[in-house]
Amino acid sequence: MYAERIKELKSSAIRDILKLTARPGMISLAGGLPAPEMFPLDALQTATAQVLSRYGSTALQYSITEGLIPLREKILKNLNGNAAHHTIDNVMITQGSQQALELLAKLFIDKGTLVFTENPSYLGALQAFRLFQARIAAIPSDEDGIRTDALREALRRQKPAFLYIMTNFQNPTGVSLSLDRRHELLEIAKEHELLIIEDDPYGELVFEGEKLPSLYSLGRGGNVVYLSTFSKTIAPGLRVAFAAASSEIIGKLTMAKQGTDLQTNTLGQYIVNEYLESGRHQEHIDLIRRTYGARRDCMLAALKKHLPGSTTWNRPRGGMFLWLAFPPGTDSKDLLLRCIEHNVAFVPGQEFFPDGSGAHTARLNFSNASLENIEEGIRRIGAVLRDTAGHAEEQPEMLL
Amino acid sequence: MYAERIKELKSSAIRDILKLTARPGMISLAGGLPAPEMFPLDALQTATAQVLSRYGSTALQYSITEGLIPLREKILKNLNGNAAHHTIDNVMITQGSQQALELLAKLFIDKGTLVFTENPSYLGALQAFRLFQARIAAIPSDEDGIRTDALREALRRQKPAFLYIMTNFQNPTGVSLSLDRRHELLEIAKEHELLIIEDDPYGELVFEGEKLPSLYSLGRGGNVVYLSTFSKTIAPGLRVAFAAASSEIIGKLTMAKQGTDLQTNTLGQYIVNEYLESGRHQEHIDLIRRTYGARRDCMLAALKKHLPGSTTWNRPRGGMFLWLAFPPGTDSKDLLLRCIEHNVAFVPGQEFFPDGSGAHTARLNFSNASLENIEEGIRRIGAVLRDTAGHAEEQPEMLL
Repeated sequence: MYAERIKELKSSAIRDILKLTARPGMISLAGGLPAPEMFPLDALQTATAQVLSRYGSTALQYSITEGLIPLREKILKNLNGNAAHHTIDNVMITQGSQQALELLAKLFIDKGTLVFTENPSYLGALQAFRLFQARIAAIPSDEDGIRTDALREALRRQKPAFLYIMTNFQNPTGVSLSLDRRHELLEIAKEHELLIIEDDPYGELVFEGEKLPSLYSLGRGGNVVYLSTFSKTIAPGLRVAFAAASSEIIGKLTMAKQGTDLQTNTLGQYIVNEYLESGRHQEHIDLIRRTYGARRDCMLAALKKHLPGSTTWNRPRGGMFLWLAFPPGTDSKDLLLRCIEHNVAFVPGQEFFPDGSGAHTARLNFSNASLENIEEGIRRIGAVLRDTAGHAEEQPEMLL
Repeated sequence: MYAERIKELKSSAIRDILKLTARPGMISLAGGLPAPEMFPLDALQTATAQVLSRYGSTALQYSITEGLIPLREKILKNLNGNAAHHTIDNVMITQGSQQALELLAKLFIDKGTLVFTENPSYLGALQAFRLFQARIAAIPSDEDGIRTDALREALRRQKPAFLYIMTNFQNPTGVSLSLDRRHELLEIAKEHELLIIEDDPYGELVFEGEKLPSLYSLGRGGNVVYLSTFSKTIAPGLRVAFAAASSEIIGKLTMAKQGTDLQTNTLGQYIVNEYLESGRHQEHIDLIRRTYGARRDCMLAALKKHLPGSTTWNRPRGGMFLWLAFPPGTDSKDLLLRCIEHNVAFVPGQEFFPDGSGAHTARLNFSNASLENIEEGIRRIGAVLRDTAGHAEEQPEMLL
């Protein structure tokens, strides 16, 4: 009855577990949500009222599949720092970045098509590619992002339809691709005519150090499809994101989007456009940076204070996530179940790894919890960990 | 480089021609747009302001893939007349009905999967099914909708994944499926375990006679996926539509939507929900009915007055479209090019026919033009037709 792809589609084990986290008293460090108290609510109320009084029914009518022209012009101008040769034909609006991933899958993936990702990689991208029955090969990453030596090695054996990569503050690890690697990656892409999908939802959320140039701008657009979104800097419920690429690829994405949902919601596009015109966007991003930066610092301090030395973690320069490695042999899913009993949740890392590794890893979100809850949540995880370690030591004795 | 499905994806010839219709002075009877002056703008402004002040950031945050629960409850209540055994697990919100078609294609179509449609059928559905490389077999229709005798005949030879059908005021023909045929179709579906996708965007826009019960309600949900939308009765730019089906199918659609765009825009869902709560929806639908009804009557009168007797058309009881047959041998695409020179446009019918027939047919839209423009537009088409006929009669003489 169902198509083949649906037989492979299964509800995520993580999602099923995390349904348990809705109960009161739960501190969730699991979600991937931006903090709702950081949405520019007043400015969006003003923008919305202005849109409806100024544009009236036009902001509620069908509009073109490519997206609102003034909004695409603003996006282009922002990209233009290093891609001045581009026009609005290089930009289209999508229904969140997830839709861009879906449309790219539609464009490039037949059943069995090989694609490369990082290891670990973003779950939503893996989902979209798997829906189109891709074969996914994951390239190892380290603290500087994808390992270009491993990529070269993999390309010697086989060529994928594209490489999917998050260059800034990756979901799940929070890791960014170093500048050297960005240059090297573009060299490799040129040599091998490798198409790169650069997904950059968190790039603006940098807390320290400088914002690194995108692959798209460094490569002047060639071989790179760039994705970003207003979900993390304005509000996700508007579902306004964008893709930038060659006009040929944007043209094909537009035809695919026509048959997919006709267009992104008109009102959301008008609201984002009006809000950007208010000129308060950069100031608001700075506020988010300071707030999320303080939350990250709080989490780092709490980890140091409450977690046993056998657990390690990284220190992302921005974004919304931090990456944890429990002692090898730990099963993060089991640990999560115990943590949920103590009213704290995180996301186990394994499902992010296309190769099935990473059973002892976890993703922690610091953007959507108060400083108090971050501290208390980490304290609880620490307590569960020590408790578990205690049991683990006791058990062999009991069994002997 | 591209996936196989993309090689088959081509820009519609109609769309390319209709790009010429943007110039000033053009009377377009071609579009499929609801009249923007009929959007309940004041009520939507009020609803939007209320949503943002009452729900604040919640209306701008990520929300669940299935869609806003109070909105699904309202939809269910409206469907419930004949399907009281259903719960909100039988309803999901989609990003316009086009997305529902895309998700259903994802669910049921592998490369080469056979699907049945009416002949002619809705272009957006054909696009969505073709993107998933369906084989489309079209069942003949007449003035009472799909011919159930022909459907029986076709089912004797082969079984499709589903039958896609618009039961009310079909796009493009404006034809509705008669009540007898509805019952017979459900009998056939039961006998053959045939899944029916019932697409009903225009069902509320009935000008005369009674509103017929949906297949979904007549069949108490069994074997039927029901699609409808708020695009034609509230505003399309909000992109809020819905699917109703068995909880099993809705569950699978939800998983597919998760990887497709995460969720429909939150703000649009809240606005539609708030607007429906105002209790003014039915009154507004009645206003649309009267307005569109008057525009249909105006078009019928103009057709009678201005078009040569060799051209025939139907008289839809509702919806947005009317169907025209020029004399056999006429090429509607050629005629459209001549009409565009005289600043009037319609949609040639051929692309709506999966079997490639219908070269002499055309779709006329009466919902989105003033009475003056409808009269003048039809007058111009009549003039071009007579002019063309004159040429056609002259030519043989000249050639002799």
